[in-house]
Amino acid sequence: VAGSQQSGTADPPFRTIAIVGVGLIGGSIGLAARARWPEVTVIGVDRREVLREAVSFGAIAEPGDLGTAARADLVMLAAPVAQNVALLDELAAHVAPTSVVTDVGSTKRTIAAAARTKPGLAFVGGHPLAGAAVSGVGAARGQLFRGRPWILTPDAGCEREIVTRLTRFVQGLGAVPEVLDPDRHDRLVAFVSHLPQLVASGLLHTIGEAVGEAGLALSGPGLADTTRLASSPADVWTEIFQSNADYVEAAIDELMALLGDTKARLHSSEHVTTVFESAARWRRALRHIGEGRADARTD
Amino acid sequence: VAGSQQSGTADPPFRTIAIVGVGLIGGSIGLAARARWPEVTVIGVDRREVLREAVSFGAIAEPGDLGTAARADLVMLAAPVAQNVALLDELAAHVAPTSVVTDVGSTKRTIAAAARTKPGLAFVGGHPLAGAAVSGVGAARGQLFRGRPWILTPDAGCEREIVTRLTRFVQGLGAVPEVLDPDRHDRLVAFVSHLPQLVASGLLHTIGEAVGEAGLALSGPGLADTTRLASSPADVWTEIFQSNADYVEAAIDELMALLGDTKARLHSSEHVTTVFESAARWRRALRHIGEGRADARTD
Repeated sequence: VAGSQQSGTADPPFRTIAIVGVGLIGGSIGLAARARWPEVTVIGVDRREVLREAVSFGAIAEPGDLGTAARADLVMLAAPVAQNVALLDELAAHVAPTSVVTDVGSTKRTIAAAARTKPGLAFVGGHPLAGAAVSGVGAARGQLFRGRPWILTPDAGCEREIVTRLTRFVQGLGAVPEVLDPDRHDRLVAFVSHLPQLVASGLLHTIGEAVGEAGLALSGPGLADTTRLASSPADVWTEIFQSNADYVEAAIDELMALLGDTKARLHSSEHVTTVFESAARWRRALRHIGEGRADARTD
Repeated sequence: VAGSQQSGTADPPFRTIAIVGVGLIGGSIGLAARARWPEVTVIGVDRREVLREAVSFGAIAEPGDLGTAARADLVMLAAPVAQNVALLDELAAHVAPTSVVTDVGSTKRTIAAAARTKPGLAFVGGHPLAGAAVSGVGAARGQLFRGRPWILTPDAGCEREIVTRLTRFVQGLGAVPEVLDPDRHDRLVAFVSHLPQLVASGLLHTIGEAVGEAGLALSGPGLADTTRLASSPADVWTEIFQSNADYVEAAIDELMALLGDTKARLHSSEHVTTVFESAARWRRALRHIGEGRADARTD
């Protein structure tokens, strides 16, 4: 501790961290937090063989259980969406009054609503917009959040000090914190994450069934790019869609309206040009954002 | 000529080649053909400044016009789809009786139908499944077709010898020839090429309009992959959609049926799992195909 203070780094916002669910995201949080604040104790809660691997990787310092997790300064729920809600229920009665609880789930309204039923629980949801094609603690890396957005979704009545500490924490992991309320978060990810995933899988399913393997053999790199997400595991996504069904339905409706309109006007150069030019403009915006992030990473 | 025969290479299937439209594809054909058969004369037909650039790149040996093109052993129409059909009309009356005419357009029924109205014309359509995010002769490269499929679409009554010569030609450029009739070709590309393009553009247009630039800033690499095709130029695609409208409409219908069904069953883990697992299986098939091609390239 003395060493890190001498070198000018700030005190860690949390001294003990319990990570419940040590997969790709949980493991990467452990690696990043321990690299940033060596004095912090990181406890992991998961199946025994996962914890053994996590300790050997240095992602956690020691294995724990929900009892030890409840006494940590920060409890980080990093299991799949529905399981995080169940864990919150289980932990709420035992968690120390000074503990802050957060999660990393892809949807935020359900867990925020569950937390609201537990007065006195210092909960602020979170969602790091980082991931990889692979999963499991074996794929964890401390750089995963570097330059990536990490959305925090405090309720209106939340203590500012808790948001401030969480903000410092995710900045320490290299992420760029953003604050959104749970409802706006869920609408946003329905469009920028859930709809593209659904379309990539639905598109490749449709094409594969229509043309078979011999037809796919005559496809180009464009199809491969467009359907890269189609290798995503179903189990993670069934939970995400269920916990965000209304906004995902609305996003599907918008896309279907556009596709139906385009189908009816395929012979209209004007219509097709309008859609393609709009898409190309948004694509340039997306590229600028990506370049901005790459710049931030080299700082 | 003696030198290449000594080194065991076969005689070129065509001694003079006219490339009408010297962009990315036309320029790459010139580079690949001249690298493979240095004794072949490649003539280019395009705007003067394009031809100047093509000569300086070595993509063509000399500039020409439709008159000189009509006397080449192989006339390669490499302009956009609708323009190729117009060029075929213009050339048909003047083309030497021994000349073979082909094209590289993305749809094949329209030009095949146009060719059928010109008795005596030795036309076989073609479609190299290669491309790049960039266009223009400046982006041409001789390796563009290496290991990529090149579909030839002869009509039923076509002389076999012409197909054999074209097959040898595209193999000489490094491509893997496939034969399909124009109708099957057009249905196939509606699914593996035109639908993904339409979806990538339609998806990013829909998302951009819904969440704006601030929302896109909170997207991850999945959206960037899924919408990479959205930077494609509109003018090329309006012609492709118009010349393949029926099959593109059918492909949109299939996808919309799947999306509508999924929207209605977002809470069904079984439905979502079925679609995602099917998509993941087709994704593995697609990856095997890609790996097979990478192997072929290193041979």
